[in-house]
Amino acid sequence: MWAFRTARIGSLLAATSVILRRCLRLGVAMAKSQFEYVRNFEVQDTCLPHCWVVVRLDGRNFPRFAEEHNFAKPNDSRALHLMTKCAQTVMEELEDIVIAYGQSDEYSFVFRKKSNWFKRRASKFMTLVASQFASSYVFYWRDYFEDQPLRYPPGFDGRVVLYPSNQTLKDYLSWRQADCHINNLYNTVFWALIQQSGLTPVQAQQRLKGTLTADKNEILFSEFHINYNNEPHMYRKGTVLVWQKVEEVRTQEVRLPAEMEGEKKAVARTRTPGGGLEL
Amino acid sequence: MWAFRTARIGSLLAATSVILRRCLRLGVAMAKSQFEYVRNFEVQDTCLPHCWVVVRLDGRNFPRFAEEHNFAKPNDSRALHLMTKCAQTVMEELEDIVIAYGQSDEYSFVFRKKSNWFKRRASKFMTLVASQFASSYVFYWRDYFEDQPLRYPPGFDGRVVLYPSNQTLKDYLSWRQADCHINNLYNTVFWALIQQSGLTPVQAQQRLKGTLTADKNEILFSEFHINYNNEPHMYRKGTVLVWQKVEEVRTQEVRLPAEMEGEKKAVARTRTPGGGLEL
Amino acid sequence: MWAFRTARIGSLLAATSVILRRCLRLGVAMAKSQFEYVRNFEVQDTCLPHCWVVVRLDGRNFPRFAEEHNFAKPNDSRALHLMTKCAQTVMEELEDIVIAYGQSDEYSFVFRKKSNWFKRRASKFMTLVASQFASSYVFYWRDYFEDQPLRYPPGFDGRVVLYPSNQTLKDYLSWRQADCHINNLYNTVFWALIQQSGLTPVQAQQRLKGTLTADKNEILFSEFHINYNNEPHMYRKGTVLVWQKVEEVRTQEVRLPAEMEGEKKAVARTRTPGGGLEL
Amino acid sequence: MWAFRTARIGSLLAATSVILRRCLRLGVAMAKSQFEYVRNFEVQDTCLPHCWVVVRLDGRNFPRFAEEHNFAKPNDSRALHLMTKCAQTVMEELEDIVIAYGQSDEYSFVFRKKSNWFKRRASKFMTLVASQFASSYVFYWRDYFEDQPLRYPPGFDGRVVLYPSNQTLKDYLSWRQADCHINNLYNTVFWALIQQSGLTPVQAQQRLKGTLTADKNEILFSEFHINYNNEPHMYRKGTVLVWQKVEEVRTQEVRLPAEMEGEKKAVARTRTPGGGLEL
Repeated sequence: MWAFRTARIGSLLAATSVILRRCLRLGVAMAKSQFEYVRNFEVQDTCLPHCWVVVRLDGRNFPRFAEEHNFAKPNDSRALHLMTKCAQTVMEELEDIVIAYGQSDEYSFVFRKKSNWFKRRASKFMTLVASQFASSYVFYWRDYFEDQPLRYPPGFDGRVVLYPSNQTLKDYLSWRQADCHINNLYNTVFWALIQQSGLTPVQAQQRLKGTLTADKNEILFSEFHINYNNEPHMYRKGTVLVWQKVEEVRTQEVRLPAEMEGEKKAVARTRTPGGGLEL
Repeated sequence: MWAFRTARIGSLLAATSVILRRCLRLGVAMAKSQFEYVRNFEVQDTCLPHCWVVVRLDGRNFPRFAEEHNFAKPNDSRALHLMTKCAQTVMEELEDIVIAYGQSDEYSFVFRKKSNWFKRRASKFMTLVASQFASSYVFYWRDYFEDQPLRYPPGFDGRVVLYPSNQTLKDYLSWRQADCHINNLYNTVFWALIQQSGLTPVQAQQRLKGTLTADKNEILFSEFHINYNNEPHMYRKGTVLVWQKVEEVRTQEVRLPAEMEGEKKAVARTRTPGGGLEL
Repeated sequence: MWAFRTARIGSLLAATSVILRRCLRLGVAMAKSQFEYVRNFEVQDTCLPHCWVVVRLDGRNFPRFAEEHNFAKPNDSRALHLMTKCAQTVMEELEDIVIAYGQSDEYSFVFRKKSNWFKRRASKFMTLVASQFASSYVFYWRDYFEDQPLRYPPGFDGRVVLYPSNQTLKDYLSWRQADCHINNLYNTVFWALIQQSGLTPVQAQQRLKGTLTADKNEILFSEFHINYNNEPHMYRKGTVLVWQKVEEVRTQEVRLPAEMEGEKKAVARTRTPGGGLEL
Repeated sequence: MWAFRTARIGSLLAATSVILRRCLRLGVAMAKSQFEYVRNFEVQDTCLPHCWVVVRLDGRNFPRFAEEHNFAKPNDSRALHLMTKCAQTVMEELEDIVIAYGQSDEYSFVFRKKSNWFKRRASKFMTLVASQFASSYVFYWRDYFEDQPLRYPPGFDGRVVLYPSNQTLKDYLSWRQADCHINNLYNTVFWALIQQSGLTPVQAQQRLKGTLTADKNEILFSEFHINYNNEPHMYRKGTVLVWQKVEEVRTQEVRLPAEMEGEKKAVARTRTPGGGLEL
């Protein structure tokens, strides 16, 4: 519960008012220059030039958030489409993002190698992505969750990682997609066991302990008649966002890592994108 | 305009599908460990221990945002109160923030010296503050702007600055407050000249060129009968947020810099705050 | 074994000479500006202002170095005095060092909090200390090791650590001195067991396994009639270097951590030191 | 002038001895663990993986050093050969250096992209290079300056720069070589004007003001009968050090930038180099 500080603050300030008036008599203009030395404590966090700059966001405490907002298990397509809408907004509002990849409650944004946006300051990259994504999440919520009110504003953490070569960037994207695959296969079987076979979460966990990919595929097929490869791309592979020049009805040639199948979307714009992926 | 990539992507993927199938035959589990080396490209950005950690946010392109949402000039109290509501949310949702100071479209958050939140990783501090603030801004918008719909989700940039001593932290806060004072005095006269005397922006700027604090005070008083010192604290000094233990109806003793007058509010909570300001 | 590249290089260059001549025809002046973008890859590694800057050096592979140069065990006073001579040279040649502490094959140098030497660039601090120390080690070797020729030039690694308060700096120095104490007590008993009781290194190690400080003191006293507290300060406590204004026959008042006993020396100079330790 | 602190220190320590004894009674073993938290103030300065790591050294105050040791102008071949001897020692003693380039009082060392020496810690790279180079400079001095005693131990500063691609590394080396060319051409004419035409330094500077490469070449040829292109490679182009496998009498194929002509040497070793330049 918030309360305005009134009387208490009043007396607190009374106590300091002598010093206060003495300070102010000096004039604040003078004062400001006197304090400006504190700017020197800021650190230059320039990203190494000629490297791919990746910003990856993760939802903060999203298991709880999903619970409170009745997300479907194992995948809530409304939530995934909202994430992608936010990522599109980020790509449109910020500069120099050439590709984005999302799965579950995370999204990665790749800035072009030679971007000089905000002089490549890492803090600008990550906070602008994180704040634009978060404000968009609330802004577009109702377009995707019509009957489910948003109960509180969510948070997202972010980080910057640099990749000096095309190969390392590809391997980064492949890593995130392999993560998507492994988690989604597990979750698909786990929730089938609970929702269709009536197991408890603990029982389902026990059942899956030590199983390999082939075992899980087999359980899905034999017990639930689910061919995992027919599950939606978006669930199994995540979502890739790339630019598309619509006026020419021609897609920019982006040689994605072979594994980067998944759900793909494109954003159209009239101006030529700042730079291709050049993989 | 966004468009799903369909046929084009299809053929693109057809081209890569040979490699794709070869990759996938290896099994993704294997693949994931093969790609995990990319984690080593992440940088450890631990904040130096025993320093105050300050995160400062600034609205992105807020002149345009203010224009599009019909903010009152020179101060829109709805906008300022919304900013403060967001800052309160940040203080309540995140850990170890002992004080916050806001003015105009910026807010600074001070984490306690010995905070070990997320192992003091700078990227966690700044992205969680930025995203929580931004999502709150949209979430609470309608509580402050009843008749003014939000037209697009705003962005905020953020940075982390470390201050190794109480003196340097005080000087940081004084610096931001001196900035508030100087800008607000200027804006108050500038907009009076336009709104009440009918000057154009260029004429108002000319009129104020080279004037000192005393000159501006004099113009306000003689031409507009405004005693600048009677202007609201929130406009002249900004807003300070500190914790208050309500169950004891006792405010934590925080010796603020003398200049830190302004609008003050407090957030109440039952647990003892993680750490005082200890200035 | 080194060899000049002659004929082989000749033909290598012949192969590249066409490109070479084409390049050089453009003029190197033009070329230089064309290459200068590579300067932007340098990182700004400014030390946070108002923090103590500590550079600690460690000898590289000094167990082997000690062996090859017949150092006395457990302490070679010639080697320790040479280390201290090098540290004095570092303090005299570089700027803003207020105190140095050394033990075994390591030395720590503390630059004053507000030093602005080379704009506080960490790489300058550590490489200038390391190189000046290393060149001095060879330069002054013969003054301390008259009969022992230097067989190869040694290396030293270095690092920069920042301490934001006097307490943390004191604790740093205490940590290094506690390290000195623990190692020296162990080594004193270890080598007494070998040199005087004829144990092998493995036997001595076995004998000392699990012993506490009191146990080691007791072994020294009862078996070797050594009162550890009478061992030379330099061995037990290390060496502290501080500035002394000789012309006034007055020592700068430096309140060292209480544990900082040890061997103390001072360097005299006519100018007032750049800044005291201000602990 | 250095003086041992004796009486003064004695009384200083007497004053602190009460605290001292109280501290030591606690036992230093306990104390050490109590102080060890200061290790957390060390920063992880890992170099971004898969980038070329370049360490560049520069002599500290070498104009004065050259003056005091009677270096020949504009080039002292003894000094250049000593620099190269030190660089060879650095390449032999440290790990993973694939190429080195030197000119004047500077030397650059390139570690291979995937080096994991000391976990790629930048401070280790730069201090070990700087200290090994500096100790070697004194150690080998007399082999190159027979009649010129070394008057004091020199210092070298160092820095680490990362280059993420082969092209940027090539451009770095080309940049240093273009710098060599420009400086050497200038110095060659400058000292000819002084040594052979009797100009003062100021007059020589005036004469050269605004001249281009062609002008300087013309002055050298017409006034001093010097064909600049016949000047020694080492002066005009600097020195490149690469590894050579001697047992096979075969030089490692290193495709240097075309401009990388200059004086070339090789170091032979029986083991295969840790990694080629792979340009």
